[in-house]
Amino acid sequence: MKADLAENSGVRGSMVIKPYGYAIWEKIQAELDKKFKETGHQNAYFPLFVPKSLFEAEEKNAEGFAKECAVVTHYRLKTDPNNPHKLIVDPEAKLEEELIVRPTSEAIIWNTYKSWIQSYRDLPILINQWANVVRWEMRTRLFLRTSEFLWQEGHTAHATKDEAIEETEKMLEVYADVVENFMAIPVIKGFKTPTERFAGADETYCIEAMMQDGKALQAGTSHFLGQNFAKAFDVKFTNREGKQEFAWATSWGVSTRLMGALIMTHSDDFGLVLPPKLAPIQVVIVPIFKGEEQLAEISVVANDIFDKLKAKGISVKYDDRTEYKPGWKFAEYELKGVPLRIAMGARDLENNTVEIARRDNLTKEVRSLENIEDYIEELLVTVQNDIYKKAETYRNEHITKVDSYEEFKKVLEEKGGFIAAHWDGTAEEEEQIKEETKATIRCIPLDAEEEQGVSLITGKPSNKRVLFAKAY
Amino acid sequence: MKADLAENSGVRGSMVIKPYGYAIWEKIQAELDKKFKETGHQNAYFPLFVPKSLFEAEEKNAEGFAKECAVVTHYRLKTDPNNPHKLIVDPEAKLEEELIVRPTSEAIIWNTYKSWIQSYRDLPILINQWANVVRWEMRTRLFLRTSEFLWQEGHTAHATKDEAIEETEKMLEVYADVVENFMAIPVIKGFKTPTERFAGADETYCIEAMMQDGKALQAGTSHFLGQNFAKAFDVKFTNREGKQEFAWATSWGVSTRLMGALIMTHSDDFGLVLPPKLAPIQVVIVPIFKGEEQLAEISVVANDIFDKLKAKGISVKYDDRTEYKPGWKFAEYELKGVPLRIAMGARDLENNTVEIARRDNLTKEVRSLENIEDYIEELLVTVQNDIYKKAETYRNEHITKVDSYEEFKKVLEEKGGFIAAHWDGTAEEEEQIKEETKATIRCIPLDAEEEQGVSLITGKPSNKRVLFAKAY
Repeated sequence: MKADLAENSGVRGSMVIKPYGYAIWEKIQAELDKKFKETGHQNAYFPLFVPKSLFEAEEKNAEGFAKECAVVTHYRLKTDPNNPHKLIVDPEAKLEEELIVRPTSEAIIWNTYKSWIQSYRDLPILINQWANVVRWEMRTRLFLRTSEFLWQEGHTAHATKDEAIEETEKMLEVYADVVENFMAIPVIKGFKTPTERFAGADETYCIEAMMQDGKALQAGTSHFLGQNFAKAFDVKFTNREGKQEFAWATSWGVSTRLMGALIMTHSDDFGLVLPPKLAPIQVVIVPIFKGEEQLAEISVVANDIFDKLKAKGISVKYDDRTEYKPGWKFAEYELKGVPLRIAMGARDLENNTVEIARRDNLTKEVRSLENIEDYIEELLVTVQNDIYKKAETYRNEHITKVDSYEEFKKVLEEKGGFIAAHWDGTAEEEEQIKEETKATIRCIPLDAEEEQGVSLITGKPSNKRVLFAKAY
Repeated sequence: MKADLAENSGVRGSMVIKPYGYAIWEKIQAELDKKFKETGHQNAYFPLFVPKSLFEAEEKNAEGFAKECAVVTHYRLKTDPNNPHKLIVDPEAKLEEELIVRPTSEAIIWNTYKSWIQSYRDLPILINQWANVVRWEMRTRLFLRTSEFLWQEGHTAHATKDEAIEETEKMLEVYADVVENFMAIPVIKGFKTPTERFAGADETYCIEAMMQDGKALQAGTSHFLGQNFAKAFDVKFTNREGKQEFAWATSWGVSTRLMGALIMTHSDDFGLVLPPKLAPIQVVIVPIFKGEEQLAEISVVANDIFDKLKAKGISVKYDDRTEYKPGWKFAEYELKGVPLRIAMGARDLENNTVEIARRDNLTKEVRSLENIEDYIEELLVTVQNDIYKKAETYRNEHITKVDSYEEFKKVLEEKGGFIAAHWDGTAEEEEQIKEETKATIRCIPLDAEEEQGVSLITGKPSNKRVLFAKAY
């Protein structure tokens, strides 16, 4: 909130994403959208409203999502006959069938795909949608859990199971790539347990990140939906052998929740720390001056640096406002996470130097103006990498192997983070651990090593460790 | 629908925008977004839901918009106790205050601006939002009038009246520029009459386009809102003189309705005609071959052309599918409005030529391969201009000056189009003409010439002509 990214709105559980926050979201969007298109997907748009009956078609989905949702029951207001300044719901304008504001769009989309898919020639369908969705959350928190949020949802249809699984895995890789290399947030790729799986999915893949308070955050999911939705909405096609078959499905999504991951992975006590690739302003130039004459002299050099950086495609701002002091500006840009600050005063002018401050590690250096634009360009790359490495180090230091339930509880309490432990594979053990410790199985890592062990509570044999954590 | 742009959905009044249609919308969006940013605006996001009471604050706005709208009254479904396969609205989950799905966002945004604006230093606020909105329409039509549609809505706040009016006019110019120079649709800029004005606006500016069936279409509006919303939501600021003042407002929007304008302005009996700047595929290359060997030979040359066009940033597709005949492909790309088609057969291969067909005027020519990429690049510019000129000629031929009500009715009936006539300036005459002829005043053109005349029905003096038309 202090960095001006978002604020709570007058509508319970809904946030306002402010321009600075939205500019970061737009950068995340643009990068994802580019990757989606590179992997053959097209954007489309499906209705906001889903007739209630469509949720009844896929029962697991209904169980999971359709219950805590916004329900449209009427389509008109009228002036209150007792008070001309008040509006009331017009009881005559009651819908025959209630409409649900989409919590996710599998139902409406598969109901549509029914008429698009007749033959294997119509497959695959590789569609993504950028949209708002609503889930009626009781406890909300900016970016992390809001009743309305923005996201993208991919919905694909395939002729074979293998192709659908390949798609599910491909999109998980796209997510991991963008979140790690663009947002500088290291993630662990894994499977969800059946308990934590998306309702209606045969397999849910996820990327899990570790926040600085030791809590995990699910940053994205990719679902192999099997033929569940095809069966619910009767989406059959004639395969190459001329036989009728149900289509195979995937869905995958990331949301404005990524903004929460960004904030909680990199920030420090001075405010936001933005990886250069995501920063709306990558470099800010602040003049330190006494009087207008000195400002004019500094501005000549500052504008030259500005132009050179701009020519390199670097997003740069020259803040020569006179109503704010340099110290105030320094604090402001630190709060907003601007990766590099160039300060220039009278002494710098004499010496042909500038002071460069890095937001990520708070170091400063005085540097000659010579080839300053090349230096800044390289430094932005270094900062991007260092921010990632710092987060990765923290994350790696917060994966603890434990072999007893006692140790599990101790680590969870004292250190937090991911706990790699053996699990007997049952929902019962998972549930008991959750109830007793609030930790859940975040994922079964895709690259989990084969290792013999016994599970935490029941002591049954297990051949790999899963990752537990408390989570957002 | 045949060009695969959109289709009706299972939800009354809501459409599905299909990938090909959405790709065109994305191009319109990108161009508008670029211009918004160039003129100093930033994007943000405000809640989908507006508490009912906020609509009561600005009564004119409520009169105009809040009545025919989707009303959320509950936040939960539950399993029907009498039928485990059915969901019913949980009566215990009734909202204390109903939420309206935004028909437009002035109310929620000005309720938010209240806390953002304290001093003239906080102004101007120049914000745009890309969003979905819902208006409960009884008669819907793809792209033109749908209950849910996609749009952008600019909402700005200013310290002075002049500045707000300047903003209103600037955004009208941005709209006219994009619609004319990018979408190749000529528009007339004007004011709305008080009757046709946006509820809550002091002045509504609009751009009006003429469709090929002689009906007008409002393509965009820009509103000077005066201090109406500031007063309704108590948004005051301390001005330069230290006095409290209400902020001045504008709002402006265009929507997926522009897709309707695009279709109805340029299409012919063979399908869509797309201006090159908007076309997802600008050039399609179709091989005409017998047997795989010939296809391989043609493909060598075709791929070379493909690469050269691509290198120029032209969006090109090589359709070498063997399961469809060339004739089928020709019809398909005509239907989809692809601006240029390059066909290549055995004779072309011998002669080092191709056949180039223009979608807009259906002409063909045989052309040497030499510098073909330069020729195509120039031809795309020519096509863009010619499509505009054709639409402009049609539009100009469909502006008829009339000086009597008899003539008015005759032209309206026999020819349609805009009718330039004198009006007495009253809502009564406007209303009578609307009732008797279904024609409305589309706008009072900004550039209307001073001209003395008498109005159609009452015969009162008038000093300029306004434009009447039947409209979508």
